[in-house]
Amino acid sequence: MLSPSLEDYLEEIYRFSVSNDTVRVTDISQKLKVKLPSVTKALGRLRTAGYITYQKYGLIGLTDMGRQTGCYLVARNNLLQDFLRMIRTDCDVAAEAEAMEHYLSKSTLSSIERVMVFMKENPGVYQRFVDYVQAAKRMPGGPCPEN
Amino acid sequence: MLSPSLEDYLEEIYRFSVSNDTVRVTDISQKLKVKLPSVTKALGRLRTAGYITYQKYGLIGLTDMGRQTGCYLVARNNLLQDFLRMIRTDCDVAAEAEAMEHYLSKSTLSSIERVMVFMKENPGVYQRFVDYVQAAKRMPGGPCPEN
Repeated sequence: MLSPSLEDYLEEIYRFSVSNDTVRVTDISQKLKVKLPSVTKALGRLRTAGYITYQKYGLIGLTDMGRQTGCYLVARNNLLQDFLRMIRTDCDVAAEAEAMEHYLSKSTLSSIERVMVFMKENPGVYQRFVDYVQAAKRMPGGPCPEN
Repeated sequence: MLSPSLEDYLEEIYRFSVSNDTVRVTDISQKLKVKLPSVTKALGRLRTAGYITYQKYGLIGLTDMGRQTGCYLVARNNLLQDFLRMIRTDCDVAAEAEAMEHYLSKSTLSSIERVMVFMKENPGVYQRFVDYVQAAKRMPGGPCPEN
């Protein structure tokens, strides 16, 4: 079980590996805006756990397990971003998906995926939902005073 | 801005205050399964931040701000539990709501509430979703190998 922080590293390495021929420690450091010594420490943990390898010239390689898990982590992030856009939240979708992703069970992720597929397969229903959101300028008051 | 841990304390104090005449440090310790010194430390922080007061005989009182925020925290937890049940996830709903609740923006919580209200106001749509979930024994394969 990877920590949220190591999941973020692996997710970013996988994402980088898909769109670039090589992945270097410096690429990840720049992308995640984390200083090199911290990146090196995290990568050491991912290597020990069998997700990545270090190669010549400072290149990072993904093991089969690393590629599989990285792909899952990226798909999970994409799913949550799609879901947040689908429900029309008015927030920083990337940041919100990032915050949520480490804390959901696989079962809930599957259920969210089912909601997405249901809405895609039923565009009439989704249109009704979008119309409803646009009309609902003010939600019925909740049980608490405003805060 | 309360930490996730202090939010949990305040949520529990509010919940307890609704169904009991008095709230004592020992009640919260037992309910959250946390040792007394840790509870005392957390309550000290909540008191400094203006959410609770200590009263005679070891009783805990809620300030107006504490009551308002506690109510919001309990409503947020209830909303997420309702949402998880609505999407028919097959997990420990209480634990999952507990894990999610600290990481969602108010905007996303409002959007989730809108989904809930939409489904309640459109029982036909919700029934179609439930039927779809029951029929979807196996989701279409995702982009990654199984893990």
